[in-house]
Amino acid sequence: MIYPFAAIVDQEEMKLALILNVIDPSIGGVLIMGEKGTGKSTAVRALAELLPEIEVVQGCPFNCDPKGPLCTFCEERKERESPLPTEKKKMEVVELPLGVTEDRVLGTLDLEYALVHGKRRFEPGLLARANRNFLYIDEVNLLEDHIVDLLLDSAALGTNRVEREGISITHPCRFILVGSMNPEEGELRPQFLDRFGLCVEVRAIVDKKLRYEVLRRRIEFDTDREGFLAKWRPEQEKLREKILKAKEHLSEVELGEEAYEAVVNLNTQLSLDGHRGDIVLLKAARALSAFKGRDRVTKEEIKEIAPLALKHRLKRQPFEDPREELKKLYEVISLI
Amino acid sequence: MIYPFAAIVDQEEMKLALILNVIDPSIGGVLIMGEKGTGKSTAVRALAELLPEIEVVQGCPFNCDPKGPLCTFCEERKERESPLPTEKKKMEVVELPLGVTEDRVLGTLDLEYALVHGKRRFEPGLLARANRNFLYIDEVNLLEDHIVDLLLDSAALGTNRVEREGISITHPCRFILVGSMNPEEGELRPQFLDRFGLCVEVRAIVDKKLRYEVLRRRIEFDTDREGFLAKWRPEQEKLREKILKAKEHLSEVELGEEAYEAVVNLNTQLSLDGHRGDIVLLKAARALSAFKGRDRVTKEEIKEIAPLALKHRLKRQPFEDPREELKKLYEVISLI
Amino acid sequence: MIYPFAAIVDQEEMKLALILNVIDPSIGGVLIMGEKGTGKSTAVRALAELLPEIEVVQGCPFNCDPKGPLCTFCEERKERESPLPTEKKKMEVVELPLGVTEDRVLGTLDLEYALVHGKRRFEPGLLARANRNFLYIDEVNLLEDHIVDLLLDSAALGTNRVEREGISITHPCRFILVGSMNPEEGELRPQFLDRFGLCVEVRAIVDKKLRYEVLRRRIEFDTDREGFLAKWRPEQEKLREKILKAKEHLSEVELGEEAYEAVVNLNTQLSLDGHRGDIVLLKAARALSAFKGRDRVTKEEIKEIAPLALKHRLKRQPFEDPREELKKLYEVISLI
Amino acid sequence: MIYPFAAIVDQEEMKLALILNVIDPSIGGVLIMGEKGTGKSTAVRALAELLPEIEVVQGCPFNCDPKGPLCTFCEERKERESPLPTEKKKMEVVELPLGVTEDRVLGTLDLEYALVHGKRRFEPGLLARANRNFLYIDEVNLLEDHIVDLLLDSAALGTNRVEREGISITHPCRFILVGSMNPEEGELRPQFLDRFGLCVEVRAIVDKKLRYEVLRRRIEFDTDREGFLAKWRPEQEKLREKILKAKEHLSEVELGEEAYEAVVNLNTQLSLDGHRGDIVLLKAARALSAFKGRDRVTKEEIKEIAPLALKHRLKRQPFEDPREELKKLYEVISLI
Amino acid sequence: MIYPFAAIVDQEEMKLALILNVIDPSIGGVLIMGEKGTGKSTAVRALAELLPEIEVVQGCPFNCDPKGPLCTFCEERKERESPLPTEKKKMEVVELPLGVTEDRVLGTLDLEYALVHGKRRFEPGLLARANRNFLYIDEVNLLEDHIVDLLLDSAALGTNRVEREGISITHPCRFILVGSMNPEEGELRPQFLDRFGLCVEVRAIVDKKLRYEVLRRRIEFDTDREGFLAKWRPEQEKLREKILKAKEHLSEVELGEEAYEAVVNLNTQLSLDGHRGDIVLLKAARALSAFKGRDRVTKEEIKEIAPLALKHRLKRQPFEDPREELKKLYEVISLI
Amino acid sequence: MIYPFAAIVDQEEMKLALILNVIDPSIGGVLIMGEKGTGKSTAVRALAELLPEIEVVQGCPFNCDPKGPLCTFCEERKERESPLPTEKKKMEVVELPLGVTEDRVLGTLDLEYALVHGKRRFEPGLLARANRNFLYIDEVNLLEDHIVDLLLDSAALGTNRVEREGISITHPCRFILVGSMNPEEGELRPQFLDRFGLCVEVRAIVDKKLRYEVLRRRIEFDTDREGFLAKWRPEQEKLREKILKAKEHLSEVELGEEAYEAVVNLNTQLSLDGHRGDIVLLKAARALSAFKGRDRVTKEEIKEIAPLALKHRLKRQPFEDPREELKKLYEVISLI
Repeated sequence: MIYPFAAIVDQEEMKLALILNVIDPSIGGVLIMGEKGTGKSTAVRALAELLPEIEVVQGCPFNCDPKGPLCTFCEERKERESPLPTEKKKMEVVELPLGVTEDRVLGTLDLEYALVHGKRRFEPGLLARANRNFLYIDEVNLLEDHIVDLLLDSAALGTNRVEREGISITHPCRFILVGSMNPEEGELRPQFLDRFGLCVEVRAIVDKKLRYEVLRRRIEFDTDREGFLAKWRPEQEKLREKILKAKEHLSEVELGEEAYEAVVNLNTQLSLDGHRGDIVLLKAARALSAFKGRDRVTKEEIKEIAPLALKHRLKRQPFEDPREELKKLYEVISLI
Repeated sequence: MIYPFAAIVDQEEMKLALILNVIDPSIGGVLIMGEKGTGKSTAVRALAELLPEIEVVQGCPFNCDPKGPLCTFCEERKERESPLPTEKKKMEVVELPLGVTEDRVLGTLDLEYALVHGKRRFEPGLLARANRNFLYIDEVNLLEDHIVDLLLDSAALGTNRVEREGISITHPCRFILVGSMNPEEGELRPQFLDRFGLCVEVRAIVDKKLRYEVLRRRIEFDTDREGFLAKWRPEQEKLREKILKAKEHLSEVELGEEAYEAVVNLNTQLSLDGHRGDIVLLKAARALSAFKGRDRVTKEEIKEIAPLALKHRLKRQPFEDPREELKKLYEVISLI
Repeated sequence: MIYPFAAIVDQEEMKLALILNVIDPSIGGVLIMGEKGTGKSTAVRALAELLPEIEVVQGCPFNCDPKGPLCTFCEERKERESPLPTEKKKMEVVELPLGVTEDRVLGTLDLEYALVHGKRRFEPGLLARANRNFLYIDEVNLLEDHIVDLLLDSAALGTNRVEREGISITHPCRFILVGSMNPEEGELRPQFLDRFGLCVEVRAIVDKKLRYEVLRRRIEFDTDREGFLAKWRPEQEKLREKILKAKEHLSEVELGEEAYEAVVNLNTQLSLDGHRGDIVLLKAARALSAFKGRDRVTKEEIKEIAPLALKHRLKRQPFEDPREELKKLYEVISLI
Repeated sequence: MIYPFAAIVDQEEMKLALILNVIDPSIGGVLIMGEKGTGKSTAVRALAELLPEIEVVQGCPFNCDPKGPLCTFCEERKERESPLPTEKKKMEVVELPLGVTEDRVLGTLDLEYALVHGKRRFEPGLLARANRNFLYIDEVNLLEDHIVDLLLDSAALGTNRVEREGISITHPCRFILVGSMNPEEGELRPQFLDRFGLCVEVRAIVDKKLRYEVLRRRIEFDTDREGFLAKWRPEQEKLREKILKAKEHLSEVELGEEAYEAVVNLNTQLSLDGHRGDIVLLKAARALSAFKGRDRVTKEEIKEIAPLALKHRLKRQPFEDPREELKKLYEVISLI
Repeated sequence: MIYPFAAIVDQEEMKLALILNVIDPSIGGVLIMGEKGTGKSTAVRALAELLPEIEVVQGCPFNCDPKGPLCTFCEERKERESPLPTEKKKMEVVELPLGVTEDRVLGTLDLEYALVHGKRRFEPGLLARANRNFLYIDEVNLLEDHIVDLLLDSAALGTNRVEREGISITHPCRFILVGSMNPEEGELRPQFLDRFGLCVEVRAIVDKKLRYEVLRRRIEFDTDREGFLAKWRPEQEKLREKILKAKEHLSEVELGEEAYEAVVNLNTQLSLDGHRGDIVLLKAARALSAFKGRDRVTKEEIKEIAPLALKHRLKRQPFEDPREELKKLYEVISLI
Repeated sequence: MIYPFAAIVDQEEMKLALILNVIDPSIGGVLIMGEKGTGKSTAVRALAELLPEIEVVQGCPFNCDPKGPLCTFCEERKERESPLPTEKKKMEVVELPLGVTEDRVLGTLDLEYALVHGKRRFEPGLLARANRNFLYIDEVNLLEDHIVDLLLDSAALGTNRVEREGISITHPCRFILVGSMNPEEGELRPQFLDRFGLCVEVRAIVDKKLRYEVLRRRIEFDTDREGFLAKWRPEQEKLREKILKAKEHLSEVELGEEAYEAVVNLNTQLSLDGHRGDIVLLKAARALSAFKGRDRVTKEEIKEIAPLALKHRLKRQPFEDPREELKKLYEVISLI
């Protein structure tokens, strides 16, 4: 039994960033930076628990959406059996352990099966399970470079193609990537930082009342899990509805001239590398408008989202205090 | 034959921390810091020996509790055979050797069995044996990071899920984690330190009388093990009863407003990272109250437990003398 | 669905370098240096998408051109079945992941097949798929030396020969090598730098109007992919025709005395290592003339191409500012 | 043919430390520190050769003592065949090579046997052979940490438990651990140093007469091995009898108040880490009394043994001359 | 189609050193030092292409010369089938990739064949293919030491003996070793330097006319390979004849007193390590005389060859400028 | 065809040290220190070639001497077949390559044979081939420590015992260990230095006449190997006889009081570590006396041999010039 997302005290930035990615997964995930013991992985698991079941092709190891795109196996099956049978599945948080091998990530040939049965079988990897789910990497800054490469490539293409020993499999691979890291334990290469859509920081709560509330709810949950869940069910229900509605209406939110200009003005002043910052900022602002139930993106949403979308894309000047950089960011934002 | 727990001379903090974790395993384990030759592993083994047998599903490699939660195998078996047959088993101390592989920890597919018999079989790992037992890691600061990650994840979830080559197994995995380390031989990452519920230090006894007693009892034990055990049986019996009674009455101990406030007041003054310190402190104080036979948690228990729950969570300031930090901790505690 | 090459805003140098290599693959590839998020891999994929299908021997894992040269398998097959049956295949971008093994690059014996079927079978590697396609290496400066060696040797010979455990295979292996790197993340050995035909730098666009356009097109593409593609189809068609025509007429472009002299004069003044710079510069200028529809190479094309062909071949003087080097290069170019 | 122990010239401390461990193996082994070419391994082999054969269960790979404790196999066999058949076996020196693997130390599953015969079989490791024998590690300071851990854990428990792929074996594992090291080639972690019961230093002999004798005996032995052995047989016989008698009467040696006090007084003055020094000193003094044929331990034996039991347990002060430490040790000893 | 050796512009030292090794392979190979892009590997391949086919025992994987020495297999076959059937084979350049394993170099047992067919078969290595061919190592200074050891041992003995798992194979292994290195990328151990017979340096051509010629010929070759080859055929033919004639008459070239004295006088003045310099210099001078069609070695040939044979054998003095060393070498040579 | 030992010019120390080890292999081998190209490995191979064939048990992979000691296999065979059949075998030089594995040195189980035939078979290692032969290690200072350990242990015991997966093999393992090293490429651990019986230095010859002779003989040998061998046959024959005679009479050479005293006097003045220096010096002096045909060891032989036996055992003082040490050694030797 998992702690209810709606009962998480404070940490609004983190919660918002996660929700926006659910509304528009093309935002590209969240990097959560923060000290230990602030409930980062709890929040992700709680959000997955909150969301409704998804419809998948029955028995498909890649959680194919019956409406497509389909994996190699489902494509073949569709020719024999149409329409494809479906089932409902709970969303899950697939965790990528440190030290994971490429084979475990991508999937591989099942050698043992081949030896015993004389037939080859594809053994799906973590990217298979991650399709249409959350992919969570704790301490992402400690992950080996070539594994992060694999993830980012799959995330960019939305597809995983595995060619091993005569088997060629393609499967859709769209997931909400959530990384967490403690900045005191090493940095992330700028190349990778940039690939995360949004970035938020979490800290332990210092306000005594809120802190008291955190403690009380946790003890209450640990002492009587079922009672606690029952008590929070209505809040959970409400939040779920709000997210689903935003998701549904996302494409109807208008992106006017004003929004485009605000984004470009803001980012040229900050001289960010590349164009990913522009795209993410505009998309996240749109998702936020949808979450708020609005029908167009205004400067307000852009200002609200800008710190989450841009903070990790600022060019780090040597010898400059990172707090100075942030200060400048907020100044520039305030002026648009 | 193992040295009786009750006959351990002095080392009260270590003994208490171990006992509180038996009373409430959700406290999250003990880290024992101390010099060599102070009987750290002896104490853990002695406590496991002291405790009564546990009831497990007959033949289950994961020591499933018949009252649940159950592993994948027991879930299946329950459908064929209900109620599940049970047996009694001595608790044990599962030791995690340095240099252990991920497969040995999590369990893996038994390749050899598959080759010989043409059938796949899951080979349970150390986490299987550790369920409902003690998991002891000597010199935990020398363990590889990715193994510690595995342990802490399993400990946090209370569950181990293994997906390997077409086999998917979930089994409960709740253990009392005990780590020992000699701080002179390297530090533990703050990330890990924080995951141990309590932390105690042990030192060789300098009081001559106590030291004399340590030596005498050890020689007596080595010379006539059975006689020594017989002599200490009543003390052992008494302590076991006290622990079991506390365990049983734990949920009845009241956590009043005063306790909550004391915890939050204390910890906000210390500006600890995250919220784990709050939760552990309150739980451990509750377990202590239960051990003392009290019906509510008072400031007294919180003050008594605070050093064990917080010492390893203090923020280490660069260039500051660690003794200064501890001094401050005791001052703050004395004032609540 | 891939973003249309013709819709890429600005980045003219990169686009030209890629196109010239399509026109004359013996130029030797492109190294793209630049910051993150500037669409390097997008451009390569988009160009592959733009190009027409190629004709290959049906079922050949090496994409053999029916007009030759042929791989070992097609040579054997031709004796049984002539003419060889053909099929059309879309060009693709084969990506070389970091951490790739020699076996994955070159191909290897399929041990599993041999164990199960008692027959040996060759398992083609990435170089097989890369024949007549693009081979893309992201962050080429992080690739292991011995893998780069393999690539460059195959690229130089146009052939990959694999001898493993009693199997001897030779297959044509001609690809357009595209490497990308962020110069802030480490250098490339001069030995390797020199093996790339051309080198271009990309940067995020700072001109507000262009930047606005980048963002607008991307959001438009992400929102309605099919509509966007339809809108750009005519531009795509036009560009494809222009490239194909240049490819066809390449051999007819005249290399006169003037072109030879300009190249040798230029490069002796720059005292480059070796002779590769001379050859690449002349060939790329010829391809450019063909692309422009001209019938002879003039100084103008040489001047235009020289920075792309020579910049990465300048001898780096210790303690000298790289910008000074570039300045000198442009001065020397302006004077020929 | 091995050089006779009784014919070893001088090196009294080393010989005594080895003999005391034979009399009471719970002393915990000997660490021999010294320069090359001083006959360290020769001495251990010679002592093993001197001792009488031991009685073991016939065919048991763990050298089980028929009087118990028994290994898993002998326990099972006893149910079919009682009393267990026995045989006599020469004691041996099991040498632990540097670079040894965990599997070779603990034993492992015999994969090859399983593949060929379709049955699993346990392949005993070096700890199996070492039971009731000497375990010798040359250059123990170069052994990998995780192997030393394995050894010390087994030594501490007197038992080796191997759980591998469905086989669970427990066997007694009591050995006399002898390590040698050249202190000029690196130190031993204090953690390990402390686990050796006694520590002695050996040096080449400088006294010309003794040195002459060493050379003469060695040449004599090399020239006519059988003659030399015959000549030394009576001395060997006498020493064997003395050792066996001491072993037999060990439990009858009285440990009076005086002995306890002397040990505690001595060690509290030296402020050693932990309590192992106390226990080893008292046991070794008792074994010495038995070897001398005395019926109680007096201060005299404690003073004689203290340097061997404590020298390697002194706390090393930074910047302090190790010779100063030793001087202090001898002063403190002289005053008890 | 390979660029004709005779059409290589300039680079006389490199071409001569390669040719002399073809005339007398016991000279011991060539080390080519030089910057990138100077056609080092092209030259070796071109020379192999130029030479006539060799006669080998039909189907022998070691290219055994029917006139002997023979490999183990041919020895056995000769008993069944005499005379041995022969075939003609083109000489080839076997390239030793960086990161190659010992098994790939020496050959190994074909495990896969044994598993599938139940019979053992030897899998020849690169040294098998290299027999009577060129063995080329690009960037030899980056090759692992133990691989270079293998090569040099085989080169010294002229034989490769492989003993693996019950198979014992001996085969002749005589090759012309050509290594290339860029001295800016690390040094070669003096031990290895000395094992190369000759050493030459190559640089890009600075003379404009020659450079122009290099470029023109290369473009001509790339544009019309067959035409270019036809044009150079007579030159190629002439050079081949000259080399073959020199090879044939080598043993008839007289080594008089004057030659011996010149060599010893020269080398004792240079105080080289060892005697290999003497032997190589004399042999290379003899090969040069044969190439020039002379019937005796004179001082002239020794002077001409001395820089190639001795430059890499000079003792490097710490802090001395390498150009000073070379200057001294040329002075000493000029005086003999 | 190998260069004749008797034709080696100069290098008297090296030749003598090798010969003395043939006369008395218990001297413990030779370490040859010297620059490259001085014919170290040639000398060892030449000496092996010079010696007569040895008599071995027919087909025994360990070259067992029919007069014993025997390996496990020959022991078993002797029970079925007595006397054991014998054959003659040429002595050989077994070379230990750098990077060799423990399995290749000791021998191992032949897994492939077991998989294919269902029976286990022992695969002898290099130590098997080395029995009663030379074991040569080029650049011994680059060998991995644990391999050197294996060698030295086997050399010390004269026996190799392999216990692997249910097979237990013991075989005699007596070889003449010859190591070579270039002291400029790293040192040997003092522990290992001491285990070589003798140590000699070789340098290129500077005397012009001798150098001339080296060159002339080498060219002569390379030009007409058979003629050269025929010319040197009588010298070879004479030397072989002299060595064999010395070997036979070794045990009759008298070691008088004077020899013992000279050795002990000399070595106590040099304060060497351990006693190995004494023993080696006396044995080598005895072998020298035998080689000279004398019937007793005198001071003269001790003085002659002392530099070879002691030079590498001198205690290296920090900051002291090694030439000073040697000077002292020669002074001390001159005074005995």
